[in-house]
Amino acid sequence: MSLPRELGLRVLSAVLGAPLILLLGWWGNWPFFLFLALLYLLGLREMALLLRIPPLWPWVNSVFFIWAARLGKPDYELAILPAAICTAVALVFLFPRFSPREAAATFFSSTYLSFLFFPFFLRSLPDGWCWLLFLLLITWTFDTVAYFTGRFWGRRRLVAHLSPGKTVEGSVGGLLASGCLSLLFTPWFGLSPLSLFLLGSGVGVAAQLGDLVLSAVKRASNKKDAGSLIPGHGGILDRFDSLCLSAPLVYYFASWHLGG
Amino acid sequence: MSLPRELGLRVLSAVLGAPLILLLGWWGNWPFFLFLALLYLLGLREMALLLRIPPLWPWVNSVFFIWAARLGKPDYELAILPAAICTAVALVFLFPRFSPREAAATFFSSTYLSFLFFPFFLRSLPDGWCWLLFLLLITWTFDTVAYFTGRFWGRRRLVAHLSPGKTVEGSVGGLLASGCLSLLFTPWFGLSPLSLFLLGSGVGVAAQLGDLVLSAVKRASNKKDAGSLIPGHGGILDRFDSLCLSAPLVYYFASWHLGG
Repeated sequence: MSLPRELGLRVLSAVLGAPLILLLGWWGNWPFFLFLALLYLLGLREMALLLRIPPLWPWVNSVFFIWAARLGKPDYELAILPAAICTAVALVFLFPRFSPREAAATFFSSTYLSFLFFPFFLRSLPDGWCWLLFLLLITWTFDTVAYFTGRFWGRRRLVAHLSPGKTVEGSVGGLLASGCLSLLFTPWFGLSPLSLFLLGSGVGVAAQLGDLVLSAVKRASNKKDAGSLIPGHGGILDRFDSLCLSAPLVYYFASWHLGG
Repeated sequence: MSLPRELGLRVLSAVLGAPLILLLGWWGNWPFFLFLALLYLLGLREMALLLRIPPLWPWVNSVFFIWAARLGKPDYELAILPAAICTAVALVFLFPRFSPREAAATFFSSTYLSFLFFPFFLRSLPDGWCWLLFLLLITWTFDTVAYFTGRFWGRRRLVAHLSPGKTVEGSVGGLLASGCLSLLFTPWFGLSPLSLFLLGSGVGVAAQLGDLVLSAVKRASNKKDAGSLIPGHGGILDRFDSLCLSAPLVYYFASWHLGG
């Protein structure tokens, strides 16, 4: 796909998609929860296909994570155990068609992607809407600025063995932009500008790491995109991979800040 | 190894090992916790070798699980996240030497084996010592009776594709024995004999499932034993595999019973 056409689709998807997510996030409660559950299920399917395991078993596990997430808190222990038991049962009955490594991949993908529920947990905190807005804006800013900075000024490869498109210049641009945009939130959170700058850059680092995890998974299965659901962005995971790690970071920071 | 010699070693290990565990379990607190942490670390090493991943990364993850387990409750969410982050960092920096499937195996083994801390959580409940004694006796009874019943009367294979030594007759004998032995605990727990029989058999089913999970992992890597630390029993995992799933079952049953 040519650059202008790809960019056009990318911008269009963002212009249509971002307000939808912001609206659902502002609304919170069931609509937001169901939206995230849908993302989780579609993401699991993409991840399973990338890891070359049947999507059925991650979906069976997902029931427990969705059920546990409904409580609005990351109290996973009751989901981890049934998920482990289901994986164990599948392993025992389907062996050797379903190998221990495939069982591990099933367990890992259903647990790791369940971090996509953290925006919902964040929304359930006091001032949840502000924190959620912060998370989404900073993560998107990092992704977008890193993409364009890298595209136009990128020279040095960040992780050549993993994702040739990512550059040091792109990441630095993204981190600076996330840090600076965070400063806008000073009046709301009662944090010093320095703390907010550091938190914003930290969110950028987490977003980058989440992105690189997906890059490794895609690279290992020789795919460029995780799927093709979002025009110009690829699959669900191509768009929401950063959130898997940035959302828990903001959630735990916010809980700690509100508690202390 | 000939049958009498193997049996002799097995009995000797049990006669020396069981009182040690019972003593540590009765003592509770730090000694029991450290003992379980040691089992966890040795078990992780065996599991990593079976799954053909370097034991280093499961050990890095284990720090978080050990730290979280020290609280005496299965509140894992704060361990799951750092473990996922560490696995992500390892994946990103070591790719392609460390593949996504190896990352998944790392995450899975450190999470699954952390269920070995449930005897400690059980010990921390009111009447914890009784519940722990129940768990250990019933799990051992199941393992031992199933082994010997299968050895002497076993005909029909239970899971021929997985573990040719296990027979339907062995499992039935084990389940009956666990159910019946449970009845001894009637005066302590204030449960009806039927409930106790069902709980005891349930513990047997969980123990069998834990055992079969390890069988699948061993079979996938063409090993007969997970290690050679315990004479006559193989490795740590060969002896404690059943506990990974039976301990959480007893813990959650006990919490629910005590809470209700």
